[in-house]
Formats: sequence, structure tokens, C-alpha cells
Amino acid sequence: MAKRAAAKTRLTRKDYEARLPRLREQLVQLQVQLKQLPCPVLLVIAGVEGSGKGEVVNALNSWLDPRGVEVFAFHPPTEEERERPFMWRYWRSLPPRGRIGIYAGSWYTEALREAAPARARPADFAHALARIAGFERTLAADGALIVKCWLQLSKTEQGDRLRELEDDARTAWRVTPEDWESHRRYNRLASLAATMQRQTRRPGAPWHLIAAADERARNLAVAETLLARFRDHHRLMKQIAAAQEKPARVTPLRPAGRRKLLQLPLDQKLGAADYELKRDKWLGRLNAGVRRAAAKHRSIVFVFEGWDAAGKGGAIRRLTSAIDARDCRVIPVSKPTDEEKSHHYLWRFWRHLPRSGMVTIYDRSWYGRVLVERLEGFARDDEWRRAYTEINDFEAQLTERGIIVVKFWLHISKDEQLRRFRHRETTEYKRHKINAEDWRNRRKWAAYETAVGDMLALTDRPQRPWHLVAANNKRHARLQVLKLATRQIETALGLK
Amino acid sequence: MAKRAAAKTRLTRKDYEARLPRLREQLVQLQVQLKQLPCPVLLVIAGVEGSGKGEVVNALNSWLDPRGVEVFAFHPPTEEERERPFMWRYWRSLPPRGRIGIYAGSWYTEALREAAPARARPADFAHALARIAGFERTLAADGALIVKCWLQLSKTEQGDRLRELEDDARTAWRVTPEDWESHRRYNRLASLAATMQRQTRRPGAPWHLIAAADERARNLAVAETLLARFRDHHRLMKQIAAAQEKPARVTPLRPAGRRKLLQLPLDQKLGAADYELKRDKWLGRLNAGVRRAAAKHRSIVFVFEGWDAAGKGGAIRRLTSAIDARDCRVIPVSKPTDEEKSHHYLWRFWRHLPRSGMVTIYDRSWYGRVLVERLEGFARDDEWRRAYTEINDFEAQLTERGIIVVKFWLHISKDEQLRRFRHRETTEYKRHKINAEDWRNRRKWAAYETAVGDMLALTDRPQRPWHLVAANNKRHARLQVLKLATRQIETALGLK
Repeated sequence: MAKRAAAKTRLTRKDYEARLPRLREQLVQLQVQLKQLPCPVLLVIAGVEGSGKGEVVNALNSWLDPRGVEVFAFHPPTEEERERPFMWRYWRSLPPRGRIGIYAGSWYTEALREAAPARARPADFAHALARIAGFERTLAADGALIVKCWLQLSKTEQGDRLRELEDDARTAWRVTPEDWESHRRYNRLASLAATMQRQTRRPGAPWHLIAAADERARNLAVAETLLARFRDHHRLMKQIAAAQEKPARVTPLRPAGRRKLLQLPLDQKLGAADYELKRDKWLGRLNAGVRRAAAKHRSIVFVFEGWDAAGKGGAIRRLTSAIDARDCRVIPVSKPTDEEKSHHYLWRFWRHLPRSGMVTIYDRSWYGRVLVERLEGFARDDEWRRAYTEINDFEAQLTERGIIVVKFWLHISKDEQLRRFRHRETTEYKRHKINAEDWRNRRKWAAYETAVGDMLALTDRPQRPWHLVAANNKRHARLQVLKLATRQIETALGLK
Repeated sequence: MAKRAAAKTRLTRKDYEARLPRLREQLVQLQVQLKQLPCPVLLVIAGVEGSGKGEVVNALNSWLDPRGVEVFAFHPPTEEERERPFMWRYWRSLPPRGRIGIYAGSWYTEALREAAPARARPADFAHALARIAGFERTLAADGALIVKCWLQLSKTEQGDRLRELEDDARTAWRVTPEDWESHRRYNRLASLAATMQRQTRRPGAPWHLIAAADERARNLAVAETLLARFRDHHRLMKQIAAAQEKPARVTPLRPAGRRKLLQLPLDQKLGAADYELKRDKWLGRLNAGVRRAAAKHRSIVFVFEGWDAAGKGGAIRRLTSAIDARDCRVIPVSKPTDEEKSHHYLWRFWRHLPRSGMVTIYDRSWYGRVLVERLEGFARDDEWRRAYTEINDFEAQLTERGIIVVKFWLHISKDEQLRRFRHRETTEYKRHKINAEDWRNRRKWAAYETAVGDMLALTDRPQRPWHLVAANNKRHARLQVLKLATRQIETALGLK
């Protein structure tokens, strides 16, 4: 083994092994406590080439109970992944609450790889880092523990390390021409890494610099960083849990939204013959729009929200009749499954994002966070208040990737809802559509008006506006949905 | 609307609408009963072009409670899908128990499309149909209700229908040049469809021919077929549930398997220095093999089975240290999640199949069906007996697609297990590895020997043999795993 300047700081094998039993015990205890908290842990192992990221992952893997750990690593994105927003594949690779995800390579690897060529634009790098910071902020706010380790070697140490690996027949295969290339470009890459660390260092997600020249000390340092961060996090989460308040009284954040909702005229009429004629015209035009979007590799995401019995299902069926079944998927959103509950609330919507040229229709959506979850106290006060920003950020990532986001609120009067509830109860094949919960929600009509108003006011954006649809008359509502959808798609494609 | 010969059998709108309320009521009741059974329903809507498959799907969708239904449709397979076995994407698109999957286009669409060109080989078509029949047989045996409707039009009716659609500005977009092409080739396609129906008509999965010239009659016929089949299925499932027996006494199916297991010598020794030298040599050679496999777009699936405490985890970590973390995924298999439980037991393993060039390591596997599930009565007698065939069929689909399947049984003596259990109990950081269940399993040692023996004898195939590894000595076992894996990979690649 080559002698090196850093040899004096080396940890002997004996000292290392003496410390392992206690360390492993602490790591296993961490996993037991983690299951009780429970929150997810993201452990990012990043660093310069040759710093031993893979070995650190292997060491942690052998110390932790493997049933609670998953290792993620990423090649450059595949075709399918490139067709979604940048963060899509990372959202899909998140550990559920109570488990640890170890990232041997992560969103940082991708951001650095894209920024590395001399021709790369600094603005793109800055944008990628902002997305990453937003991603981590969103997860940290939801209780995730994010531990980011940067394994550090000086240029000399890196050269020594690569030569050492190469000189040994057992490890020579680990060194690739790309490693030497990155050694030659050490200074440029170090400067990018420094920028990256500066831009993505946040209270919930600091960077830990780990000296990587000594392998044993490096492994211990990563494990001890994880343990220390977990201890702090554990204390913090207990405090937050203790400080949880009752849901506050429902007061509007933006009264203008509710006013707009209440001003919507609901007395439209539309005869059957007139409706059918117009419907068929708009169905044809919508179909042409959807096919043109597909030809331009643009996907479409529809969001349907509205009062119970406002006619979302019927409107969706009219809409889908104009779209090739192979290109279109309807996602009915009701109570989250166990798997969904063990992730951030946006996770289940990220999962279903369409490939380019495809259509996804959400029958109810992420807006549940600021409607039912706000009013029923399923989300804490700070959680639903934060959600407007999170949702805007999420939708911005969609439109940025070229996805057309079409959002509807189907609005009916309280009387009309009553009429429809009664009709459902007296019609045999509709009775399954109504239950006690619908009646309970109805009693909170005024509170919902406030929440809907806030939603409309706080998440309406030029590229992804809320379409308010008067739905007391079903034919009128269905036609409006077709028209508004068609027009927004045509505008997005520059056809109007 | 064009007059047609079949007009005399038309159902009037009035008659149609009179029948709908009762029909919808029955469909909703079906869904309620389905949740209680519960089993999955696969409703395949296939048929000639222009027969209205999409409209049938839309009609059913509007009659059923959408929360219990999912519609599937498929484009020609993507790159990612082509890298897996033919049936992979259909396994991923299965409804869970209690829900209905409607297939607007299915495995049949793909098989017919591939068989349609004049240059297509009949043997490939026959092979695809055999795979499909196996797929449906596997699901039906597990309780799935499979309803396959073939919407039928004569050549004249088809021509009339396409012209009718084309003449109407509202529906002209639905008719594509491919539709007319398939009209010109009506006879060839009809003959392929007849072959297909003959080859895939099975007791649990018959074909229902539906006359599609009259749209309303067609819609009703599909719904009534579904209802009738469900009624029969419901009765059958109740009978099966009533007839369930206690798990029988554990008697070997193939005593030779158990004999082979018991004859394995377990007294190997291997010194630390000798081990490290050999290990590093084999790690290098394994790494070269894995990279060569990737270069040839061959994936590798490792299966690790063995007694509790036999050292699977350690062996897996040695193995993965030779593989790029980005190319490798370890799937720890323990109790199935709720989502997994609501599918066929093979579903959770299909999910994780690697892309070409990648490696998946199953830490325990589908063999749980014929081990723990057999012995604990989690699988009925007919279920685990059937599983040997299902597993062989599953693995055959992997090797057929070029996947290298490497299977290990790590074998230790009963005394050695006891020693390891005690060591775990007295070592702080290993205590989490042992629980009451391990001790319970241990008391059934002899029964497990029988089950393992049957597994070894009944699922050992030249292309995917069982490697029996003597594991009383951990170093010996780890080295054996590296050697055997490397050799099998080299053989599969034709390097030896």
C-alpha cells in the first residue's frame, strides 16, 4: 500500500474494530426508534471520484438492519425519465416513513454531471440547484431527516487513491478513464461542488464535509454524523408532536377568492338538442388539440375538483370519449393507501405523471391538502398553510417540463346538491354514490367555501389557471369543460 | 345513418334505456359482492376494428362505480418494456382483489399485431398464445375471474361501420388508415383471431363472442356476460372456501431432493488469509462477468434462500461489492405488504424484474410459496402444489428473455444454527436479527428439510440450477457463492 502524507491521521484496524460493536448497536437502535417516530431518512453520500462512496454504502449496509434500508443509485436518465420533470425519478425513489434511503449518487450527481462540461450554462446549474433545494425543503418540512455527506479528498490524495486502486489487481477494475478525467479537472469540479454546497445548504439539510483519505475514519465519520443528526431530529420531532394544536377556526386567507366563487352565476340553461350539437363540435376540436399536443410531445394533466355530486364523473367521461384510451389515464383520488400514507402527500401524485404526449386526469387531486385535510384537521395548521407554496412549486415543475395543466372547480349551489343527494338516495343504482361522509361534508358548506376561495386565490397562475364551471345545469357544465379544456390546450400550443 | 342488413335486430333506444336501471343496479351489486369475495376481475374487450371496443369500455365505465374499476390500454411496448419478458407489463397492470380491470386492448392486441404481417412466423404466434394461456391459467387458479369478450362484425358490417363513422363529421377522426388496412385484410385477421380463440379457450377463461353490429345490444351483451360469469364465479368461490382443508401432514413429494440436501458435507474449513486472497480473485472475475453480461444486454437475477442465520446477508454483501451500485438492486423479501397481498403471489416479484444489463438480488424469493407458506398453511394444499409449475413457468419466461437466473440454497446444520441464534442473542447489535418466529421455525426443522428437498428436486433446471452451498463455515460459503455465480454467468455468456 502506498505511503502517504495523511498516514499519520490513520485509524488502525484495531481501534476501528474496537469501536464497531457500540456503533452498530447505536445504528440498530436508531432504526428501532425510527420506526416509532416515524419519518423517512435520506442519507446522501456524495463526493469526489475515488473517495469511496460505494465502500461507505457497503459499510453502512452491513451495519444496519437491511430490512429497513434501501440503496438508490442512478444512471443518466432513461428516455421515460427524461419525459418527466427533472425531480420525477427522485420522487419515485423516496424511502417511506420509518425507513432509510441511502443515496450512492443522487440528484446532486446528475446536477454536477450536467454542469461539468465547459459549455454548460451557469444559469441552468443555478436553476437545477434551486429545484433541488425546493425538493429538500418540501421533504424536510414534512419531517424527513436529510443527511448529506460530502466525501472530500485533495487533488493529491485523489491521485494517490486512484493509483493505489489501479496498482492492485483486485481493485484495478474500479478505476475508469472517467475517473482520471475528473482528476485532471479537479479544480473546476471542486468549484462546482462548492457552489452546489453553498446553494443547497439549508437549516433542514446542511452539508457535512467528511475527510475521506483514511477509509476507516471516513466510514466512522459518516455513521457518527448520521447518529448525531438523528438524535437532534428525534428530539425536534417529539417537540413538534407535543406542540400540535387543534385546527384553528376557518378564517379566509384571501377573501377575494370566496367572493369570486359566490359571484358565479348558476342559472344557465342548455337544451338537449343544442347541447348534443355543440358537444360533438367541441369533442372533435378537443380531440384535434390533444393529438396536436401529443405530436409536439406535450402531455396534459387535468385536475377535477368540485363539490360532492357536482358532476365530476360525468364531465370526465365526456372528456375521455374524445381521447384514445391508450393515451389517457384517470386517477380517482380518495383516501390514501397505507403505502401512500407513508410518504409525503405529493408523492402519490408524482407517481402518476404522464409520459410525454399522454394525458392524466386526476379525479380529485393534491388540492385535497388545502380542502378536506385543512377542514378535517388531517393536516396541521402549518402543513396546509405551507401546501399552497408546495403545490405552486409542484405545478411549476410540470409546466416547466411542457405539461399542460388544466384545472376545474365544478360549482353547484347548496340547494342543487341537496336535490342530487336525494335523487341518489332514491335511485337504486346511484345509492352507492352517497354516504354519511357526504352529508357530514355538506354541513360544513360555509367552511368549504372559504377553503375553496383560498385555493382559487392562492394557486391561480397564468399558465395554470383555475376554471370555475357553473354546474347546476349538467349539460352546461359538461360543455364548458370541453370548451375551456380545448381553448387552454390550443393556447398552450400557440394555435390561438 | 346508413341502412344496413342487420337493422332488423336493432334494439330501440327506448328498450335499451328501459333495461339500464336494473342492469346498473346489478353491476353495482356485483362490485359490492366482489369486495367481499375478494378476487380480481379481468374484463378483456377485444374484437375487430370498428366494433366499438372503446364505446363498450365507456359504457361500462359509466355504469360501474369508478372507484372499483381501472381501465388499461397499451401502446406497442416501450424500450423499457421490451427489455423485460413479454408478459411483464401485463403483470404490472393487474387489478388487485376486489377490483375490476377493463382491458381496452390487451395481451391479445399485442399478439395479434405481431402475428399480422405476412412475414410473421406461425411458431412465434403459437408461442405467444401459449404464454398467454399460461398467464391466464395462473391467475384463474388463484381465483381471478377472467371474462374475455370478442366483438364480432362481418366484413360487410365492418365496412358499413367505418363508412358510417367517416361520413359523420363528429366521428370521422376515429377512422384511421390502419382501420381500412385491417378491413382489406379482414380474412387473414379473422383467421388469426380464430386460431387465437381456439388456443386460449380454457375452462377458467372462455371466449364470449358478441355480435357488435347493433351498438346497444352489444353494450348490453357485454354487461350481461360479465354479470352471468360473476354469478357462477361467486358460487364457485364460496364452494372452494367451504371445502378448505387443514394443511396435510408434511410428506415429501420427491424424497431424492431431501436426500441430496442431507448428503451435503458441512465440515469445510477455510483460513482467513487464504479466503481473502481467493475472494479478491473471484470478486474481480465476477465483476468482469457482470460487466460482460451488461454489454450483451443480459440481466442477472440472483435468488438467495437458506435456513435462518445461514448467512444470506453477508454473502449478498460480498456479492454486491463487486457490482456497480447503479446496476444492482437488493430486494429483501419478508411479509407481503397490503398491496402485495391483494395480488397473485408472483406479482411482487414480477414488479422488480431488472432492465436489460441490470442485476436484481432477491433476499428470499417466490420460493417462500413452497417453503414457509406450505408449512404454515398460508397456502392451501392445491396452491403450493401448483406453485412448482408456476415457478418453473415464471423462471422459464426469464431465461427465455435472456435473463441469467442464479439460485442458492445456503445450508447449515441444526447445531450450527443453534450456535448462531445464541450468538445473536448475546451480541447487542445482532439481537434485532432474532425473534420468536426464528425459534418457531427451528422447531419445524424436519418439515422444512422435506419442503426444501421437494423444492430442490422440482425446480432444478439445466438453465437455472439450484446451487447447494455448505455454509457452516461462513468464509467457505461466501467464496462458494462468488465462484458458483461467476461460473454460471460465464457459462451463460458462452465464455467457458
